[in-house]
Amino acid sequence: MSEARFDVVGIGSAIVDVLAHAEDVFLSKHDAPKGTMLMVDENQSQALYKDVGPVIEASGGSAANTMSGIASFGGKPAFIGKTMDDQLGEIFAHDMRAVGVHYDTEPLSDGLATARCIILVTPDAQRTMFTYLGASGLLSAADMDEDLIASSKVLYIEGYQWDLPETKKAIIGACETATKSGGKVALTLSDPFVVQRHRNDLLDLINEHVDIVFANEQEITTLFLSNSFDEAVEAVGGLIEVATLTRGAEGAVTVTKDSLIKTPAKPAGKVVDTTGAGDLYAAGFLFGYTRGDDLQTCANLGALAAGEVICHMGARPEVSLKDLAAKLG
Amino acid sequence: MSEARFDVVGIGSAIVDVLAHAEDVFLSKHDAPKGTMLMVDENQSQALYKDVGPVIEASGGSAANTMSGIASFGGKPAFIGKTMDDQLGEIFAHDMRAVGVHYDTEPLSDGLATARCIILVTPDAQRTMFTYLGASGLLSAADMDEDLIASSKVLYIEGYQWDLPETKKAIIGACETATKSGGKVALTLSDPFVVQRHRNDLLDLINEHVDIVFANEQEITTLFLSNSFDEAVEAVGGLIEVATLTRGAEGAVTVTKDSLIKTPAKPAGKVVDTTGAGDLYAAGFLFGYTRGDDLQTCANLGALAAGEVICHMGARPEVSLKDLAAKLG
Repeated sequence: MSEARFDVVGIGSAIVDVLAHAEDVFLSKHDAPKGTMLMVDENQSQALYKDVGPVIEASGGSAANTMSGIASFGGKPAFIGKTMDDQLGEIFAHDMRAVGVHYDTEPLSDGLATARCIILVTPDAQRTMFTYLGASGLLSAADMDEDLIASSKVLYIEGYQWDLPETKKAIIGACETATKSGGKVALTLSDPFVVQRHRNDLLDLINEHVDIVFANEQEITTLFLSNSFDEAVEAVGGLIEVATLTRGAEGAVTVTKDSLIKTPAKPAGKVVDTTGAGDLYAAGFLFGYTRGDDLQTCANLGALAAGEVICHMGARPEVSLKDLAAKLG
Repeated sequence: MSEARFDVVGIGSAIVDVLAHAEDVFLSKHDAPKGTMLMVDENQSQALYKDVGPVIEASGGSAANTMSGIASFGGKPAFIGKTMDDQLGEIFAHDMRAVGVHYDTEPLSDGLATARCIILVTPDAQRTMFTYLGASGLLSAADMDEDLIASSKVLYIEGYQWDLPETKKAIIGACETATKSGGKVALTLSDPFVVQRHRNDLLDLINEHVDIVFANEQEITTLFLSNSFDEAVEAVGGLIEVATLTRGAEGAVTVTKDSLIKTPAKPAGKVVDTTGAGDLYAAGFLFGYTRGDDLQTCANLGALAAGEVICHMGARPEVSLKDLAAKLG
């Protein structure tokens, strides 16, 4: 690979988050298992929206949040994701570019609206998400900018895309482009139900294309049908270059063929909303990884970024992670 | 007046706020006097938007924020304001209804987009606003629901509307409807530059129609061309039923013909964003006023609501003001 123009290119859903506080009973009423992501259609999304209290809107999307975090550290990220040419699409594109993420996926000019994700934050700071994919589900092979992918050190992809057969195919093509040009492929498993729905496909993907896996405890145990976290760690260790597994308040475990590194969680203050914790952990880790840090430093940077984002509403950093990292050494 | 269906009906701009942090130097660059509101056209708004960092969106609009606050106290507010039938218009309407504000102004089906206000919050927690009025500037006599206005105890109007000749005329009609049906008319002066631009008109309005005035120190001194706050207090005292004047960290002064009441500011914590402070002061005051509280209690409720909203980003309460008031006695 010649000199890379970008540290990481993320491919994922281009989503605007709609954030509301809710009580646990509201989740039960809407049959939503806490802490997970439910795919909803436009009517369900509208019905739920009518039922929630006042909200704030902010750009989101898992890989998009991660790219935003990498930019906040001072890295060079790019993003590929589909919006519609509407007000929410404009908001999404603005927030990517404003923070320094290279983003030029052509928006749809008609058809489905820009994706929105209604995120309910319960008093325990957990988030439960209801995603209406809209335009973001229409990402296709035509959007996979080969030059961009070939000129990035890491391609970062979301398990979420495995619910979309066309997009999934396009992303596998992107993985091949990345590998051919000497780049690494990183995958986040995204959600335990996603893993449950696409277990075999995701295992194949990991075996054939993936160098770095991000997952939380539920996701990794679901992937390997493990009875315990330790069993899952053993299963994933050595299967690929590196797996880094987050466990909420218990921190993260990073495993390779030869090593296992534990990293404590580092909340910057009172935890108010865990939205974006995994996304920002990946941001810190990948920022460190692409500048050549050792794995312990990568995990520390991940914990620092996650620790910032969980102390306020919303899935993207409110302060410069570069400054925060400098301050904390 | 027969039994009122509503405590307060607000007429104002239906706006979605676009909130960003900015440094003082950014304001200088955009020739913006800190703490004020600048009217911008669509091109200026777009240019500024391109230049600001990542943002969050939340419903705003001065009178709309006030009605939202009254609902949060458990009062019965209604709102009249114009949106377009677009995504930001949908967000605005949702946030009104979700909190319990009666709102059924017909949105435009084409033409100008829903209003947006870019709000820059500087490190000193001050806010400076750039308003693109869009659809909200097209409020007309046809939108003045006479039954609604006649069945409200108080009509609450914004000085901001005095920049819009058609809307201004429609609102004077609404004042006549309110007075005829035994209701009171309350006015917020909104912004020192608005007062400067429309001083004589606003003085006429106050003399002919207004029972209750809300203003901050700069606005009231501008209105009476006073050399000091005390001079302005003297000028307004007795001119109308009650004037209640806010002075930021120094609290509020409420004056009638016979009395002058001082109320200290009550920030609930660290002040991070003063957006909505005046709007929420008016909410607390009017909630107390319409249930028959004495003026000291009205001002205390105003200070409580303002004290909540300045401790987080955004112009609307994040907690139930009813619960907060109960907790603080």
